[in-house]
Amino acid sequence: MSVTKGERPAWISDADPQDGLSGFRFYGGRAGVKRKEVDDFALIFAVEGARCAGVYTQNLVVAAPVIVSREHLERSSLTRAVVVNSGNANACTGERGLRDAREMCELVTEALSAQGHTLHVSEVQVCSTGVIGAPLPMEVIRAHTPVAVRGLSEGGFPDVARAIMTTDTRPKARALEVTLGSGETVRLLGASKGAGMIHPNMATMLAYLCTDASLDPEGIDALWRRACEQSFNAITIDGDTSTNDTALLLASGRGVPLTGEDLERFERALTLLARELALDILRDGEGVEHVLHLKVSGASSTQDARKVAETIALSPLVKTALNGRDPNWGRIIAAAGRSGVSLDPQRLSLWIGDVQIYREGVWLGSEQEELAHEVMCRAEYEAHVSLGVGEGSCWVYGTDLSAEYVRINADYRS
Amino acid sequence: MSVTKGERPAWISDADPQDGLSGFRFYGGRAGVKRKEVDDFALIFAVEGARCAGVYTQNLVVAAPVIVSREHLERSSLTRAVVVNSGNANACTGERGLRDAREMCELVTEALSAQGHTLHVSEVQVCSTGVIGAPLPMEVIRAHTPVAVRGLSEGGFPDVARAIMTTDTRPKARALEVTLGSGETVRLLGASKGAGMIHPNMATMLAYLCTDASLDPEGIDALWRRACEQSFNAITIDGDTSTNDTALLLASGRGVPLTGEDLERFERALTLLARELALDILRDGEGVEHVLHLKVSGASSTQDARKVAETIALSPLVKTALNGRDPNWGRIIAAAGRSGVSLDPQRLSLWIGDVQIYREGVWLGSEQEELAHEVMCRAEYEAHVSLGVGEGSCWVYGTDLSAEYVRINADYRS
Repeated sequence: MSVTKGERPAWISDADPQDGLSGFRFYGGRAGVKRKEVDDFALIFAVEGARCAGVYTQNLVVAAPVIVSREHLERSSLTRAVVVNSGNANACTGERGLRDAREMCELVTEALSAQGHTLHVSEVQVCSTGVIGAPLPMEVIRAHTPVAVRGLSEGGFPDVARAIMTTDTRPKARALEVTLGSGETVRLLGASKGAGMIHPNMATMLAYLCTDASLDPEGIDALWRRACEQSFNAITIDGDTSTNDTALLLASGRGVPLTGEDLERFERALTLLARELALDILRDGEGVEHVLHLKVSGASSTQDARKVAETIALSPLVKTALNGRDPNWGRIIAAAGRSGVSLDPQRLSLWIGDVQIYREGVWLGSEQEELAHEVMCRAEYEAHVSLGVGEGSCWVYGTDLSAEYVRINADYRS
Repeated sequence: MSVTKGERPAWISDADPQDGLSGFRFYGGRAGVKRKEVDDFALIFAVEGARCAGVYTQNLVVAAPVIVSREHLERSSLTRAVVVNSGNANACTGERGLRDAREMCELVTEALSAQGHTLHVSEVQVCSTGVIGAPLPMEVIRAHTPVAVRGLSEGGFPDVARAIMTTDTRPKARALEVTLGSGETVRLLGASKGAGMIHPNMATMLAYLCTDASLDPEGIDALWRRACEQSFNAITIDGDTSTNDTALLLASGRGVPLTGEDLERFERALTLLARELALDILRDGEGVEHVLHLKVSGASSTQDARKVAETIALSPLVKTALNGRDPNWGRIIAAAGRSGVSLDPQRLSLWIGDVQIYREGVWLGSEQEELAHEVMCRAEYEAHVSLGVGEGSCWVYGTDLSAEYVRINADYRS
């Protein structure tokens, strides 16, 4: 899979998340986990099961639901349901937290069984997002799970996107349709949340992509991992990762089995959808005024390119310069220089949008800077650093650092 | 050398930087590199030479004066003079920058020779700090170097501290006297600057420690490296390193040769002075409202302790919490968890000042948080994370992240 973003091909078209997806039912509503009168409980049901791949947080401090979901996915690659609550992360909650996460899966299993479906508890994935350190209010979850199962509907996907929100200001749901070589189509629905952080929580990122495509069970993990590398694992707001981050791909397999060029088309659409949902998280990030698409090319390896790109995208000096719409090449080049990657400063070049401001170690003058400043006034734009030493390249996606970000994250009790 | 900070022993006492130091002359004044009517040129002269150790930037994008100073120190461990200009970093200036840095050393050599001193150009260290990308105004430096040499004085050390400032709001000069076992004394003078960043510059850190102690030429490099590890390399404001960072130790050797317990006393005083000068940089940092002394203990190794401490101290979520005086243990623990160091969340403990708020994976409640909040209202305080798995420990020094920091670093042209 190329890292080139490129134009969207004609065989990918937008679809409406509300139109649903063959083999799936969705629910989003209010259980009462949050004090506020807003939705906080979501359920995704794969009527006859779905192949599932999961990418979970790399943080060693892992919330109970992530531990349970990982266990379940190891035991069964077939998943029937995903249950999510927002408002409480069930993290740093010890043995009780593990019991509660397991009980959430059991409650879903029982409620679905009561409706005539046959499933095993290990076929349920569980996610939580919200405040950490406090126990889950299990009584409201116990009461609401049967309500959620009864409320499942084909058109409920936008409700899922709404119910998983924490400090997000808007739900993030998207859908794509892919036309295969034969003229048949497969569909993809996706929802994400993230970038919000409320005391004492971190920015938990959750993402669910559902498709009716029929995917090779052997290949689905690698496929999902590649897509996440170029989307949810390529965005950064502040470098902090949460105890609860989870991204799941569910494939109901209702459509034709995908092989060859059709599989390539599907992967391209999957990556595109995941990237847009990841960018939606940045666009809705607390205090974010600018989203940067940063390409680093000409590195000795993809790993090197990524290291340089992440160092630049995370540098507070670069991020404040983005906020000030300041084409501050000195900060960008210095960040590259301290990234730990071996490079030759005399080969470095830098573009903001299409405007080159630095060529092989030489600054191109204040007129170019003025043009670059105009690009940086946009809400979203690209920049490109070329190291000039090899073929390795990658894209990462970052944001500016605004005084508003600091205000939101500092002023919780003062 | 222990990482314990500990109390200052009775054999270390404060001294007055203005009282000078046997074997040294100092100058600070205005050459005209800066547009503003402030000092921008400093000279340190070791009358009969000094043993010199240098710690330079790790950034691969290196300014011309750093390249020249490194070359000179490799050629000659004896240094006669250090010349510094502020207002222009002579960085990203290509071949011309190298010629200019070499010429600064030649100018000092000539001007000192004209006064009857015999020295080689490789015995001169050169530093620049300020704007990058623009050529040095060599005409004013040519005109001023002889003036500076004629202006050298025993009491001029505070002028050095003033002349190396860029966006620093106050000069940073300190002096210590160490009483040896015999009752004899050696003295240390130190000056630092840093933490300021003006477009398109980064936060260049400069530090000069001068002593009349007689140090083993074989041991001086390791000695200085150890002191820098616990001071200038243990502070972090934003993780960015400059193209020009330089820290020099100069020992004139006028006093008795130091060995055994006396050498240990000297190293302790040197480390203490370097640490205070490093902390002075944080205290004067742009938009800094709180300075954190962070200890990580109980790690498998010193390296692991440092990795955890740096990840915590650099986390924007932790830094904004410090700004909000918010004992947000969730963010601190999550930063430890993503540091790349293997740890057991169930063994983590956390103190703010003397107040424990988290014990072996368990939160100790809101009353402890309230007490910790009171500690966090201080301008400077300690925190301690124990990993509970080994003997490795370290201290790092960080700051909060304020809206003012963002304002200063974003608003250069908007």
